[in-house]
Amino acid sequence: MLLSGLKNYPISLSAIVSMADDGGSSGVLRDELGVLPPGDVRQCLVALSGSSDIMRELMTYRFENGGLKGHNFGNLLLSALEKIKGNFSAGLEEAAKILNINGEVIPVTDENVNLFMLLQNGKLLKGENEINHNFEIEKSGIRKNYLAPLARANKKAIERILEADLVVIGPGNYYCSIFPNFLVAGISQALRKTKAVVVYNCNLVNKKGHTEKFTLDSYVENINRQIGKNRIDFVTFNTKKPEGKLIKKYKEKAESLVEFRTEQVRNRNYRIIRTDLLSDKKASYSKVDALASQRALIRHDSEKLARVLMVILELGKYEGIINEIV
Amino acid sequence: MLLSGLKNYPISLSAIVSMADDGGSSGVLRDELGVLPPGDVRQCLVALSGSSDIMRELMTYRFENGGLKGHNFGNLLLSALEKIKGNFSAGLEEAAKILNINGEVIPVTDENVNLFMLLQNGKLLKGENEINHNFEIEKSGIRKNYLAPLARANKKAIERILEADLVVIGPGNYYCSIFPNFLVAGISQALRKTKAVVVYNCNLVNKKGHTEKFTLDSYVENINRQIGKNRIDFVTFNTKKPEGKLIKKYKEKAESLVEFRTEQVRNRNYRIIRTDLLSDKKASYSKVDALASQRALIRHDSEKLARVLMVILELGKYEGIINEIV
Repeated sequence: MLLSGLKNYPISLSAIVSMADDGGSSGVLRDELGVLPPGDVRQCLVALSGSSDIMRELMTYRFENGGLKGHNFGNLLLSALEKIKGNFSAGLEEAAKILNINGEVIPVTDENVNLFMLLQNGKLLKGENEINHNFEIEKSGIRKNYLAPLARANKKAIERILEADLVVIGPGNYYCSIFPNFLVAGISQALRKTKAVVVYNCNLVNKKGHTEKFTLDSYVENINRQIGKNRIDFVTFNTKKPEGKLIKKYKEKAESLVEFRTEQVRNRNYRIIRTDLLSDKKASYSKVDALASQRALIRHDSEKLARVLMVILELGKYEGIINEIV
Repeated sequence: MLLSGLKNYPISLSAIVSMADDGGSSGVLRDELGVLPPGDVRQCLVALSGSSDIMRELMTYRFENGGLKGHNFGNLLLSALEKIKGNFSAGLEEAAKILNINGEVIPVTDENVNLFMLLQNGKLLKGENEINHNFEIEKSGIRKNYLAPLARANKKAIERILEADLVVIGPGNYYCSIFPNFLVAGISQALRKTKAVVVYNCNLVNKKGHTEKFTLDSYVENINRQIGKNRIDFVTFNTKKPEGKLIKKYKEKAESLVEFRTEQVRNRNYRIIRTDLLSDKKASYSKVDALASQRALIRHDSEKLARVLMVILELGKYEGIINEIV
């Protein structure tokens, strides 16, 4: 979502992607072919692709029958290229050419890692998929998050963070997509060192059993703790209220909107940009992205968010877009 | 092989492809996804592709493990495109664009057909794959070859035959690749009607239990019988003898070189172009085509054959290439 909005601006765009996915088609490919999980990388490639609609549709096509059932064509493309070229990064480079991408997609690590989460109650959750579907994380508390084997960051990821003008974190599934990046050795260090402005795009909705009690400030504090420094400069926060029936639908699944608590303002060492970031679109991009309907109904608008990020990058150039900086 | 040689000439090239394949990856995709068999079409697309080496390598890549084992990536591409676009021809059109092909690939029929062969001994062989692996066909004799359900030819195939300057038949597996095209309603009629020069590229080797006793003339007579008219104008025939150890290797599998019997010359109503058409290449294009090593070791050289066909098309323009016209 974020990349498809940003790609329209004349900027040099690098997407650093978590490699801890082990569910669905990616999980099967990891197990059976021994390849790295292609799913998240594929989604970034599609977002940045300048190819024809059919090529992008193809990359998100999922087979529905037989032995191929559930496999995503784009994942198969990345896995075949990994096999042909001998490693994931080399395969990804070819995929980027084939898809004519505007920008670059960098796996946070080239190593074949799994995500683990040890809860305070002693239970060990193995893999992103298991973590994603466990709803007792917040209740129990977390003793330790880690990757095994230990993973070093991709050199290019470090370089891009160090030379960036703007580093953008989130939105995304906190423990499954955002957090695993900080567990890769070298990433937090690079974030402490870079002179880039660091922005966190606050999630719209708290995830049941994971971040139910999180406020905007909890997310920022948690991320800063991972980085090891109060590194977040700006937070973008949506002020447009979704339709009542959508909010109700989420509430039924114990998911509620992330709150902004004004009383906590005094201690903040980051600025919050509050404005309308909400998507009005219904299923409009579901043809190109078969997963859209499975994803959040309450979601960011890629163009609105991109514009705000460009404002942060070049403050003052686009006036009247931001309602309020707190 | 033929197309990859011809594509280098400034001609308008249309490949009409048999759709009776039901073995291997194509067979599984037919059964499980209900798509048309993509294998033969894919090979033509790769031959005509002007894409990068990696794209062509990808199209011939075969998965080696797990549930995907044996599936060819190019077949998956064609099947996914068929599903997305709703029919095989529309999917093929997109694949042709993606692969930037020089020329066009036309399925001989858009209908989902199976090939059958009823032997004189009463046995019914079902499907190309079963026919290919049965070695009693010649011994028993054939009562009837047919497609079921009855198939009408693709309109475009008919058009191209009617407007062609040159129609080229073979080389190829006689009962599995060449013959099935004549069983499609409309093809033989178009061949009888067209003003094109018709060439048959005579196979190099007779297939065990299928065409063991065939001479050059048997192939021509058989094809003319299918067309319903003595329609073949030229036959290309290789005169370069393969290495002795290769011939021996083939003999062990009861496969021998196709013979040219001079004593039959008088009754011929077609001209035979005898020259060196043999490939000297070992496994040189096996990287781009993983199937090459499974294919014939005694095989045509695509460039030599293409040059001779161009001579037939523009007689006299390329002198000194033909040794002899009989």
